[in-house]
Formats: sequence, structure tokens, C-alpha cells
Amino acid sequence: MADLLISSPANPRLKTLVALRRRRTREDTGHTLVEGFEELSLALEAGVVPEALYYCPELMLDPAAQSAVVDRVRRDGVETVQVTRAAFEKAAYREGPDGFLAVVGAVTRRCADLAVGDAALLLFCEGVEKPGNLGAMLRTADAAGADAVIAADPVTDWGNPNLVRSSKGTVFSVPVASDPTADALAWLDDHGIALVATTPDTDVDYTDVDYTGPVAIAVGAEKYGLTDRVLAHAAYQVRIPMVGKANSLNVATSAAVVIYEAVRQRRRSTAPH
Amino acid sequence: MADLLISSPANPRLKTLVALRRRRTREDTGHTLVEGFEELSLALEAGVVPEALYYCPELMLDPAAQSAVVDRVRRDGVETVQVTRAAFEKAAYREGPDGFLAVVGAVTRRCADLAVGDAALLLFCEGVEKPGNLGAMLRTADAAGADAVIAADPVTDWGNPNLVRSSKGTVFSVPVASDPTADALAWLDDHGIALVATTPDTDVDYTDVDYTGPVAIAVGAEKYGLTDRVLAHAAYQVRIPMVGKANSLNVATSAAVVIYEAVRQRRRSTAPH
Repeated sequence: MADLLISSPANPRLKTLVALRRRRTREDTGHTLVEGFEELSLALEAGVVPEALYYCPELMLDPAAQSAVVDRVRRDGVETVQVTRAAFEKAAYREGPDGFLAVVGAVTRRCADLAVGDAALLLFCEGVEKPGNLGAMLRTADAAGADAVIAADPVTDWGNPNLVRSSKGTVFSVPVASDPTADALAWLDDHGIALVATTPDTDVDYTDVDYTGPVAIAVGAEKYGLTDRVLAHAAYQVRIPMVGKANSLNVATSAAVVIYEAVRQRRRSTAPH
Repeated sequence: MADLLISSPANPRLKTLVALRRRRTREDTGHTLVEGFEELSLALEAGVVPEALYYCPELMLDPAAQSAVVDRVRRDGVETVQVTRAAFEKAAYREGPDGFLAVVGAVTRRCADLAVGDAALLLFCEGVEKPGNLGAMLRTADAAGADAVIAADPVTDWGNPNLVRSSKGTVFSVPVASDPTADALAWLDDHGIALVATTPDTDVDYTDVDYTGPVAIAVGAEKYGLTDRVLAHAAYQVRIPMVGKANSLNVATSAAVVIYEAVRQRRRSTAPH
């Protein structure tokens, strides 16, 4: 059966795609968007089965090779819709679209749904606002081999298209969960996971703490950091030394520095002597 | 003398501000833009004297306190121009402007202009494309106390407004320089600074190298990494362990992880025993 072809930028199906940029629509439909070949490939690798795939051969960087992905998802029973360039550019949310836009189920796990091992390494993000920062932390969690990323009192939903995009699709491969802060803290306690909270208001250097046991590294909102509730709950409060004028690292950068200290210690502790 | 007041969005002076978003105009005029109270404050602290300051009291978050900055630069002989809200929003390049927009001299140093000490810690960015990544690396360099950030074969100029913005003004406080890669490498050699190049194509863990001597940490372009020329020149090639699916950290994140390993080692080596 030939694919549906959309050539009008005013096509109502494209409007449903644009509508998914709104959180309300994502929550109502349980769907979100994945845009871009690389991001879609990661989602597919992670086992995501799209609801529908919109594609535009004219915009693909490598139409011959990339069309194989369209064929593959079509064989898996996914609806594939060809879109002309003008219409696709209307539906795409990023500049310079590469001809791939998929509708997928939104990630809606809670902490209780996470499976974590004996030496869990988690990232705990409280109230982080910018989708780009959450996306960057997912990439870091993916690279560092973290077990999961928890959004406590989340401001942004995991389906936010800018988050999906800046995560390079790792939002579909790294286990993620959202919960109210109190519930997330209770879940950590139930699983014997120590909380290490980053804050400028301590003298403990982040490299002076042992991360080889089950641990969650906590970072807070861009402007205000972690709440007192999380700080009070922490097994350790740690600071990253900063000597500069601006005196604040980006929250995703802070998370990366601490999580890689944990990785360093874990590699040391398991290395042959 | 009363300030000039601009109330028309079509005012030609505002057009000169908008024109500074173009690199060509920045290079022709030697000027760039600093937008935002926080960014401007950092630039002023770093000794920058603006060519002109455009301000809009209606947009200020704290007009009473922030107007003092306008008074201060006016006393220093800087031209201050009051702009109505509608006109200011036309001139501002970011969403949600906070009523501060200054024209300042662009940073145009070369490596030869840098003064570095005995145990220099530098960041060496080759061909990095995204202004946001360079800005993030400047914040990291500021926080970590790096001596300078070098852009080798730069794609983006230091005056790029998105770079200035994402650097939170640290582009004015952290010494920066731009040079062709060959010149920048020669300068490192002349100053006895060892190059540590990050690349996925080595088995050397970045934590297994000694960063306590004079060292420049090198990161490459977002897509392709460092060129063979830089890799061949490096005293050490190092990799950050990555286990995930996406298998790539953001370039600014990589820089932060390695530079903070250098900070860790330096603090250890100078700590009391």
C-alpha cells in the first residue's frame, strides 16, 4: 500500500504535530515528537515503536541509506507518511530539519517503575527548568552508564521536544522517572540509595566523598539550586570548587563533573591491583 | 544632560544594534553586544567600558537597584540611551529582555597577547561551531580558574551575541584568544605547555594523565572532534570512558570533565599532607 502523501502545509495532520509542541496536548494524548534521523535511530534502538513516521526524502542528508529506516518501520506496521518539503518545514520544530519526524508514546514512568541494581548510580534533578539542561544530563547519564535519571518536582515533562532533541534521543534509552520530591526521596530511602546533594553552601569538596556504593547525585533548579528539603535529606552535601567571577557552573555541567568523579572512583575500585 | 530617549521601533540607532548580530558588522565596527543585567555587570567588573548603554526601566526586574548601574556608567562618560518598551523589544535579541543592552568593543586577542603563569591551565577549542558550547566552556573555565581559553581555527567569533550571552559575560573576564591552529600550537610549544587532546580513539583514560604541570586541554568540533594535526601534536591523547548508546558527550561537557580532573589533581598535589 502506498504511503499517504501530504503536500499542503495546511494539512490538518500537520497541525496535530505542531500541537504536540504544547505540554497540555502531550499530556492529553500521551504522545510526543522525535525529530531528526539520529534521535529517531536512538529511539528505535531503544525499542520505541512510533505511532507514525513523517518523512521527507528531499530533506534527508542521505536519502538512499536513510530511506531504509522508513522501510523498516513500515514493515513493523507503523504508519509512514511522506511529506513534501514545504509542508514538512511547516511541521518541523527545528531549523534545518533533516526529513524525519515521528510521533511516539511519551515517557511517563515513576520511580516505583525503575529497576536498579546493587551499586546504583542515579542522577536526581529537582525542579530543573530548561529542557536543554535535562537533555544534556541525559546524554551525560547515558555516557557515564548511570542507571536512571529522576526528575523530582519536575517543571518540564520528559516529552518536551527540546528535551528529546537535546538528549539526542537518550531519553528513550536511559531509564527516566518523575515524582514529587517527597515520593522520590522516600523511594531512594526504600532502596538504600544515598543522596549526594550539590550546593555552594558547604566546605566538603565533591571529590572527598565515596561514590562507590549506591548513590544518587542531586542537582537543583538553575537559579535557586536544591530545596532545603532535599539538602536536609542528603547523606552528603558537596561543592564543586569554583574560583571565577560568574561563580556558577551550568547545572548540567555540575552534574557531569560529579557523576564522572563517581565513575572515576568506581573504575579505580574495580581495577586490577 | 538628559539622556537621549528612543521611543520608535524604527529608530535608525536601533537598526545599528540589530546589525551587530551579524559577524560581518561586528568585524567591520569592532563592536559587539552585551545583553542582560547579569552579563553587563560581569563585563563592567572585568573592566569593560561600553561604547553606549541602552536601557529600559519598564523591563528591569529591579528598576530601583539596577538603575544605579546606568548612573554609574553615565558618570564614567558612557552614552546612556533610554528606550521605551516596544522599541527595546525590537532591538533585543533574546526573548524576555531585562532592559539592558550595551555596545562594547569586541574581544580580538591572539595567543601572543596572553600572559600565562608557571602552571598554566588552558582550554584549547579547535573549530568548535556552536556559540552556546563556547559560552558554556567559558563559564567552566571561569569556575575552574583556567588561565585562558584559546579558539584555534575559530568558526565563531568571541563577539557572537549568543556566545556572550551563554558565557554569562565571562567572555570579558576569562582571557580568550583566537589563532590559526598552527600558530596556536606553536605558541603552546614556545611556552612549554603540554597539549592533552581528547578523542574517542585511544585507550588512555583521561584520569591517568598528570595535569599538574602547564597543560592545555584540547577539544574539537562538535561533529568531527580534533583534527589529525592537533592529535599528532598532543603530548597525550586521552578518552573519557563512555558506555552509553549515544556514545558522545557534548563538547562542553567533555571539556568540563577533563578540566575538573586537572583541578582535582592540582588540589591534591598542593594539599597539606
